[in-house]
Amino acid sequence: MDLKQYLKERQAMVDRALESYLPAADVMPATLHKAMRYSVFAGGKRVRPVLVLAACEAAGGEPQRALPAACALEMIHTYSLIHDDLPAMDDDDFRRGRPTNHKVFGEAVAVLAGDALLTEAFVLLSRPDAHGDLSAEASRRIIHIIGRCAGSLGMVGGQTVDMESEGKQVDLPTLEYIHTHKTGALILAAIQAGALAGGADEAAFGALSRYGEAAGLAFQVADDILDVVGNQEELGKDVGSDQARGKATYPALLGLAEARVRASELRDLALDALEPLGEKAEPLRRIADYIIDRSS
Amino acid sequence: MDLKQYLKERQAMVDRALESYLPAADVMPATLHKAMRYSVFAGGKRVRPVLVLAACEAAGGEPQRALPAACALEMIHTYSLIHDDLPAMDDDDFRRGRPTNHKVFGEAVAVLAGDALLTEAFVLLSRPDAHGDLSAEASRRIIHIIGRCAGSLGMVGGQTVDMESEGKQVDLPTLEYIHTHKTGALILAAIQAGALAGGADEAAFGALSRYGEAAGLAFQVADDILDVVGNQEELGKDVGSDQARGKATYPALLGLAEARVRASELRDLALDALEPLGEKAEPLRRIADYIIDRSS
Repeated sequence: MDLKQYLKERQAMVDRALESYLPAADVMPATLHKAMRYSVFAGGKRVRPVLVLAACEAAGGEPQRALPAACALEMIHTYSLIHDDLPAMDDDDFRRGRPTNHKVFGEAVAVLAGDALLTEAFVLLSRPDAHGDLSAEASRRIIHIIGRCAGSLGMVGGQTVDMESEGKQVDLPTLEYIHTHKTGALILAAIQAGALAGGADEAAFGALSRYGEAAGLAFQVADDILDVVGNQEELGKDVGSDQARGKATYPALLGLAEARVRASELRDLALDALEPLGEKAEPLRRIADYIIDRSS
Repeated sequence: MDLKQYLKERQAMVDRALESYLPAADVMPATLHKAMRYSVFAGGKRVRPVLVLAACEAAGGEPQRALPAACALEMIHTYSLIHDDLPAMDDDDFRRGRPTNHKVFGEAVAVLAGDALLTEAFVLLSRPDAHGDLSAEASRRIIHIIGRCAGSLGMVGGQTVDMESEGKQVDLPTLEYIHTHKTGALILAAIQAGALAGGADEAAFGALSRYGEAAGLAFQVADDILDVVGNQEELGKDVGSDQARGKATYPALLGLAEARVRASELRDLALDALEPLGEKAEPLRRIADYIIDRSS
């Protein structure tokens, strides 16, 4: 398979779905909907939604069935970026080369646009037709998993500890807590939601969950490495920005070489987990490779 | 029935449930869970959750069945207060006589605590045991209704327009938009979620929805009136604070006497809607009376 082509097609599918799910920019209150759309359509690579669709395929389902879960995760990811960029948080003026939401719409609207995107994710997941002929129990599980992974015991918890750790010397367990929660939880949710949307049985759900845990952490280790060695275009933020603000990273804690070993080990773990799923899991395998390769 | 006694019992039931649903204050990240609990247990009157339980009873259900929906709405209400109080929004230092969340925990944690409470509402609503033996379809509708009423077409939309209107001359349609969305939507969601949790048929659901729409607006008109004539203890915020910041209110737009007529008309609408439901709806009737009486 041609991964570039695959990613491009899946990203386009997600973009079309997001376009149809989000209220139009002229629906009242127009400022709010414009602000929501500004950040959702800001050139994101759609990593999480593509993982949802690929996990759905790996479980034997048509990717279209997983579009609501895919778009819900992108809305949650986008809200977290809008709030993280606020002056009270990371105070970032640019993201992916464009002014951040609060620089364009003001802080108050940025807070509200984030709130509305988070809420809209659950509105979408609970639509009558959200999951086609999926059992009501599987639909409920998708909502519950996404909520848990996004909340105080997941992404928001990771963001809190990350913030509290800024400028402090953190140990490896704390760094792993931050990464498994701040980034890893939503990637695991993507994989698990996709698996359920695809009709995975418990064995396939377990295998895909192991993949999701390893890939989620690998993604963050690779991101940390890219912050040191990458170029701004690939990273979408300033190179060395984590270092500059004294953020704990894998290269800072383990050294660059050891961080690369860790990333490679996590890739192997992710690939091993997919063993029982055969050919259907090929996109997920290629994505795991891609995550690591871009940082090596 | 003794309304005071009824409200006290229901508030205690909600407090116990919230205590059991929210992560404990020592669960990592402790700062975040402390901040969430600080605002949830800040002496709120539990208006929305009590309405959920009363609507459940009016539909013929045991109030216990509606506790997850009741607590989810209180979490959403609480998150909206935390974010509204932020410096970038209303910039309030006190609420209900206590320092606001960001004054105690800092702005960043306040943003995150709000985000986490909003997310936790949906985690709670999608628990496997959330709605007892309720049909999966009714559970899904509860999640969808609460999400829609809380999002960009509901509460967050109302808050956006309210903020944009500050210091401006607004007309009655805009004022009604603000109130039906900012406050009314969540009260309607409370009534509708309670109705579904109580097993309401479509006729009862329709009757309760009409009650919820009228009561939601009545609540806001009464609140506007209280801002002019009330005492700080009853109001939980500074008397005249809306006026001071140039907020649009019913008394400002219609005059105090006409605002009182409007509140009374809305009460009559609410009571008429309950006609078909008989004795079971008595708590909802008494609550509608109470809302208006405290402002007259």
